[in-house]
Amino acid sequence: MITEDVLKDIFKPTNLKWRTAITKVEANKLLTRGHLQEELVGNVSFAEMVYLLVKGELPSKNEAKMLESVLVSFCDHGVTPPSTQSARLMASAGSPMHACLAGGLLAFGKNHAGAIERSMKVLQEGINKTRSDMDIDSMAQIMVDYFMKREEKIPGFGHRYHDEDPRAPRLMELAHENECLGRHSELALAIENILFESKGIRMNIDGANAGILSDLGFDWRLGSGIFMIGRLPGIMAHVHEEITRESPFRKVFEMDEIYYDGKEAEF
Amino acid sequence: MITEDVLKDIFKPTNLKWRTAITKVEANKLLTRGHLQEELVGNVSFAEMVYLLVKGELPSKNEAKMLESVLVSFCDHGVTPPSTQSARLMASAGSPMHACLAGGLLAFGKNHAGAIERSMKVLQEGINKTRSDMDIDSMAQIMVDYFMKREEKIPGFGHRYHDEDPRAPRLMELAHENECLGRHSELALAIENILFESKGIRMNIDGANAGILSDLGFDWRLGSGIFMIGRLPGIMAHVHEEITRESPFRKVFEMDEIYYDGKEAEF
Amino acid sequence: MITEDVLKDIFKPTNLKWRTAITKVEANKLLTRGHLQEELVGNVSFAEMVYLLVKGELPSKNEAKMLESVLVSFCDHGVTPPSTQSARLMASAGSPMHACLAGGLLAFGKNHAGAIERSMKVLQEGINKTRSDMDIDSMAQIMVDYFMKREEKIPGFGHRYHDEDPRAPRLMELAHENECLGRHSELALAIENILFESKGIRMNIDGANAGILSDLGFDWRLGSGIFMIGRLPGIMAHVHEEITRESPFRKVFEMDEIYYDGKEAEF
Amino acid sequence: MITEDVLKDIFKPTNLKWRTAITKVEANKLLTRGHLQEELVGNVSFAEMVYLLVKGELPSKNEAKMLESVLVSFCDHGVTPPSTQSARLMASAGSPMHACLAGGLLAFGKNHAGAIERSMKVLQEGINKTRSDMDIDSMAQIMVDYFMKREEKIPGFGHRYHDEDPRAPRLMELAHENECLGRHSELALAIENILFESKGIRMNIDGANAGILSDLGFDWRLGSGIFMIGRLPGIMAHVHEEITRESPFRKVFEMDEIYYDGKEAEF
Repeated sequence: MITEDVLKDIFKPTNLKWRTAITKVEANKLLTRGHLQEELVGNVSFAEMVYLLVKGELPSKNEAKMLESVLVSFCDHGVTPPSTQSARLMASAGSPMHACLAGGLLAFGKNHAGAIERSMKVLQEGINKTRSDMDIDSMAQIMVDYFMKREEKIPGFGHRYHDEDPRAPRLMELAHENECLGRHSELALAIENILFESKGIRMNIDGANAGILSDLGFDWRLGSGIFMIGRLPGIMAHVHEEITRESPFRKVFEMDEIYYDGKEAEF
Repeated sequence: MITEDVLKDIFKPTNLKWRTAITKVEANKLLTRGHLQEELVGNVSFAEMVYLLVKGELPSKNEAKMLESVLVSFCDHGVTPPSTQSARLMASAGSPMHACLAGGLLAFGKNHAGAIERSMKVLQEGINKTRSDMDIDSMAQIMVDYFMKREEKIPGFGHRYHDEDPRAPRLMELAHENECLGRHSELALAIENILFESKGIRMNIDGANAGILSDLGFDWRLGSGIFMIGRLPGIMAHVHEEITRESPFRKVFEMDEIYYDGKEAEF
Repeated sequence: MITEDVLKDIFKPTNLKWRTAITKVEANKLLTRGHLQEELVGNVSFAEMVYLLVKGELPSKNEAKMLESVLVSFCDHGVTPPSTQSARLMASAGSPMHACLAGGLLAFGKNHAGAIERSMKVLQEGINKTRSDMDIDSMAQIMVDYFMKREEKIPGFGHRYHDEDPRAPRLMELAHENECLGRHSELALAIENILFESKGIRMNIDGANAGILSDLGFDWRLGSGIFMIGRLPGIMAHVHEEITRESPFRKVFEMDEIYYDGKEAEF
Repeated sequence: MITEDVLKDIFKPTNLKWRTAITKVEANKLLTRGHLQEELVGNVSFAEMVYLLVKGELPSKNEAKMLESVLVSFCDHGVTPPSTQSARLMASAGSPMHACLAGGLLAFGKNHAGAIERSMKVLQEGINKTRSDMDIDSMAQIMVDYFMKREEKIPGFGHRYHDEDPRAPRLMELAHENECLGRHSELALAIENILFESKGIRMNIDGANAGILSDLGFDWRLGSGIFMIGRLPGIMAHVHEEITRESPFRKVFEMDEIYYDGKEAEF
């Protein structure tokens, strides 16, 4: 019998360069994950579009609202992050917008946006390893012990600017309201309980979103990408602010703030 | 009298490095454009957040829906754009997600996402120069003549893959429905009329969004940034697809597709 | 008659993706600009290789020494430039080396490395427009007048850290010694004479190298690229220093150095 | 007693932002690793400058020649690498030179330039673990066994385009001539012997340079950075070629080379 797959294979081009299941491009037709783009535009939210692009299907209304909250929560952290600082330095140096935005993203290294990916990985592994006869609090204790023994920080907890990151409890509250609070978030909350009692450390935005995104079924390797989608508008706003409010190529640092401790001239 | 501005000035730090009106960061408090972030999260849409970050105030509901449609319309164009191709090549080469996304953005040069900025600039200049005694059709004619005389393409019209870009009429329809169709979009439509009659050329997504974003009051220098915000999820989906479906460091090109026409070895 | 070009055309692949005259890649054979790479390695200097890659032929010994001096002169400017600052911020954020180096380059905007390109463009246009009956001093005066009238800075003169950029006179001296001091450098020197007498402004490294590279026959569009080749080792050294000497994700700025002057919360 | 270090500490600024031992910047004075830049320019080669910047002292003449050969050997590999392809795609899209070069570097992921770092790491660990009573051939055998058992490729051996990478034996020859062939290169050669006899696999450019750079005392974390310094001129030449010889925003891929295997439209 000639199935759809057989037919697809017959019409598969011989000099294949790229294969994609995301968008079919034909003259005057753009089909994304089975939907014509002109039907998506105006009918789905940005968060639904993100979900559709990555996962291949539209989310439920609650999932869509949850993902939208996640994206909004990443919006901006002032000029404190190296990503925003780098983008503004590039803007001041006269680079065009697309180069400044790209430059901002390049600062999302493993110590910055990387934290959410590691947090998702840890939570997903924790849940995968939770045996059916084990409760989540026990797994949380095992995980805390593991990290404490190695004197490592658990990604997603503690923040260099906030004792109580105001975004984390709000996100947990929304996860509850939107009926999206699943086992990964429960694990994150259980870890927070232990860490807060023993060390006064609370969940941060990365921990909260790591739990939520994991409960929404996102691969942990997408964590920093989703962070970047949420943060890009903030970086753009900062680049625009730098260009419109500051003088070009300004000296952000005074010379006496840069300390040379290398070799002096030899005579 | 001691006004708020005087007070602000008194408390202004002396060793000022950065000045921003976007987000105030204090311990356990994040205030963006006058709103606590925990009040924004869950209450505003992603599009509202973009608008707030850039313009400093929340949009009307119609404006928010319009901007959301603009962002969704930029979602993806398959593997045809150099931005998506570059990001996938980098993913195949084993670069981490944030480097692949940054790399994708670097391909948004003046011939790619740059088109929307030039289109916005042209439309905004057109409207600014439209005298009160002149109708928009006359301005459109002046502009078409100007570009034709110089044998240049008008940015925002014609597409290398589509005679009729299916996104453009949908966006114009939504602008009408959301009562966001202002003078810039009218100018774009008037230009399309002339170009279509004389050359069969239609408005593309850049022209439609250039009109809409200009009517929403966005500085033309933000055009490509907004394009990038809309497109980033698509690039992320492609990077993830490359990593999960293809073998690493694959040869996208066969050796016989690369042609050397330089000097041969001398003997 | 069957010429080499006809033969080349016959063997030209039909599904051509890329065309290049730089390097021919065959199994076990790499031919760059007509030279086998194993014959280049160990026999040509790095500067000769740069010249060969870009211009298609090897330079004279004097030209090679001159280009080497140009490359060395770009080596480093401490932590003052935004390129170095950005690369270090990214390193601190935990980005891998290749992302930090790329990020550093993204700060080479029109106000930073862009100056050398504009300087080359200006000098090359100046020489092109110097009529045979006109001496270089007259052209220099015309150019200075042009810029002064528009209240614009002439690219390549004046430096935000140095009254007398120590690299510029050294480079001019070497151009003289290597018999590479041609009309573009003479024009730069003539401009300096006028600017120094009238305003106390001297040539900077960009002006000196713009003259030299123009005299060596480089397209002005390559100016910032050559700057970046010369500076990349410096950026790499800084990234390595940041990683090996500083704690990760350190706060470069104190919170009181970032000043918020936006809206306060509304109650 | 007041030592130099005590004095340095006294004059250390209190609001220190950056600390560097690479270059001291003062008005009209640039001191790099204890040498005035105007004395370096014209007197040291580019390779010597690279060595000085990173290691803090000048190399011997033989070491300088060796490093120069390493840098030259990385020059170009035509349009086959994703780095060069990405940079050309960005150039075609109309991005400025600095963005194209940065974009090229972003493709140097762990499967591309990353190989040299892993090769350096493996060789350095191998030598560190070679007990005094063990010869290098035994260590090579242990390492080959380790990788084969895990069915992993040893970084630095085998090439996707060359059975016999012509650059590798040339580099080994030069290491011998320059008296720079130390234990790391010996280990690489010993591994090659085993791999070639058992599987016909030879050392590639990464393996050769990994041995040489390790023998020159470079930290393995600098491997890909040194690769990038060597390759940047090649990428620049390709960007310039794309801009000067090809039409802007050309379609590198035909539509029938991109295969959509996702969902069809639902009716």
